[in-house]
Amino acid sequence: MQTLAEMGEDALICRLVAGLKLDASVIAGPGDDCAVVLPPSRGEHLLLKTDTVVEGVHFTPDTAPRLIGRKAMARVISDFAAMAATPRHALITLIAPPQTLVKRVINVYAGLRSMAELHGVNIVGGETSRGDQLIITVSMTGTAPSKTWLARNRAKAGDTLWVTGQLGGSIHGKHLRFNPRLAEAHWLAKNLPVTAMMDLSDGLAKDLPRMAASCGLGCKLSVAHVPKTRGCTLAQALGDGEDYELLFALSSKAPCDFTSAWKQAFPNLKLTCIGQLVADSNKVDLLQGGWEHFR
Amino acid sequence: MQTLAEMGEDALICRLVAGLKLDASVIAGPGDDCAVVLPPSRGEHLLLKTDTVVEGVHFTPDTAPRLIGRKAMARVISDFAAMAATPRHALITLIAPPQTLVKRVINVYAGLRSMAELHGVNIVGGETSRGDQLIITVSMTGTAPSKTWLARNRAKAGDTLWVTGQLGGSIHGKHLRFNPRLAEAHWLAKNLPVTAMMDLSDGLAKDLPRMAASCGLGCKLSVAHVPKTRGCTLAQALGDGEDYELLFALSSKAPCDFTSAWKQAFPNLKLTCIGQLVADSNKVDLLQGGWEHFR
Repeated sequence: MQTLAEMGEDALICRLVAGLKLDASVIAGPGDDCAVVLPPSRGEHLLLKTDTVVEGVHFTPDTAPRLIGRKAMARVISDFAAMAATPRHALITLIAPPQTLVKRVINVYAGLRSMAELHGVNIVGGETSRGDQLIITVSMTGTAPSKTWLARNRAKAGDTLWVTGQLGGSIHGKHLRFNPRLAEAHWLAKNLPVTAMMDLSDGLAKDLPRMAASCGLGCKLSVAHVPKTRGCTLAQALGDGEDYELLFALSSKAPCDFTSAWKQAFPNLKLTCIGQLVADSNKVDLLQGGWEHFR
Repeated sequence: MQTLAEMGEDALICRLVAGLKLDASVIAGPGDDCAVVLPPSRGEHLLLKTDTVVEGVHFTPDTAPRLIGRKAMARVISDFAAMAATPRHALITLIAPPQTLVKRVINVYAGLRSMAELHGVNIVGGETSRGDQLIITVSMTGTAPSKTWLARNRAKAGDTLWVTGQLGGSIHGKHLRFNPRLAEAHWLAKNLPVTAMMDLSDGLAKDLPRMAASCGLGCKLSVAHVPKTRGCTLAQALGDGEDYELLFALSSKAPCDFTSAWKQAFPNLKLTCIGQLVADSNKVDLLQGGWEHFR
């Protein structure tokens, strides 16, 4: 089985980008110093995000390579979902030990590519280097309407707090196989007065106070209502991290009956009210916990 | 001295992004799921590039942290120079062992920030994770005129080949302290019929055949004319890599006397004709060598 060292960088890149699906927005894909793409349309802002997965932190040496790539791409798409934005163009940085099998890297790329294609994302370039661990960084641009883009800091006291899906226990598989809530986020932004939104990556116990703090508010969390993944404790639902569900705040102007419209649009995904934002920015009623990098 | 593990991720990010200089194009910088910026102006394309520096590959544990950051940022700006483009917005991915001193990371950031500010680049977000080595990835967007952007693949047989500066020996210091040739590239694009351009990162012996191949051409390299850094052999000038000088092809329509205009604009930077592109795409007269990742 051939290793990266045996294959060499140019041949590897050739192999990885062969047959990439690129839409008409791509003027120049991989191969030049920079990729060249059409800018956002009039009335749109440009959005930027980068995210990384590291062997031993976000996946293990035993993780199926396709799922590593899938996760790396899906995490970033999830950030675009968090702003009800449209992801468009991605750059991939691949760091790997020289003795890594070419086949492993090709399979990582297959996971990156299929998740990208699923959401209309063009892979337009990247970078490779040797390093001690396998690391994949995905940097992405996207667009959102300049007048209605969704931030995480515009909620008001009294706005209700909602989450999609179930929380906790992601380590048992969901962290590799989650679906970024892109369609759901677009539906919410279109149909409801969403005042703040983010994706849950570090656990509700950590992310909810972050969102509240961005708004200069506090929050009341109804722990009894937190939707727990089957078999998970409350502490796990609050602290496990990597849920990649949407957390959002809804103005009181939201129509009363929207949950039935949601059910019709997304019959298999729960939507749960878990609390409320409050004016006192020191008030955060939560268990301690949550994912902390570097610790 | 405090470590990253002791400080924690949120406090670290707060510290790193404090006082970032952001211009009016930045609608939302660090703090939300994505950064939000104004799109390119009408008549411009959007350009994307990512690049990474890895401890033990692109710098050593002894390298001054400010220079690590400087290099990480300058490498990407150099890619925008290669297309005579304008770099605008950057995202920084920082991977580091938990026991890394906070002070080291702050100094890496200081290097990133000062090089970014020098060239009008806004740092609008990023990502941190723990890992076994210090790794900095910079992803950047920029703009170029949609009608006159410079590719590396539009040269014709007979076009002459030129390089800025001197080549070789970058490992002795230049690889950490080089100045991206942004102003020089803009001057060239404005004043001369440049038909292809790239920055020299892997060594002339590797990069020139790449450029020729992109154009479907071969090349004749006049080895006697290759400008060598003082103390360097020809093999070093061809093979060392990390020169970050511009390599470009010039149509025969170029005015004869342009070198004196160049000298006036850039009195301290040599411009040298080193050869010519030829129709026979199998013809590459070069010594073997050049930087190869993974080997």
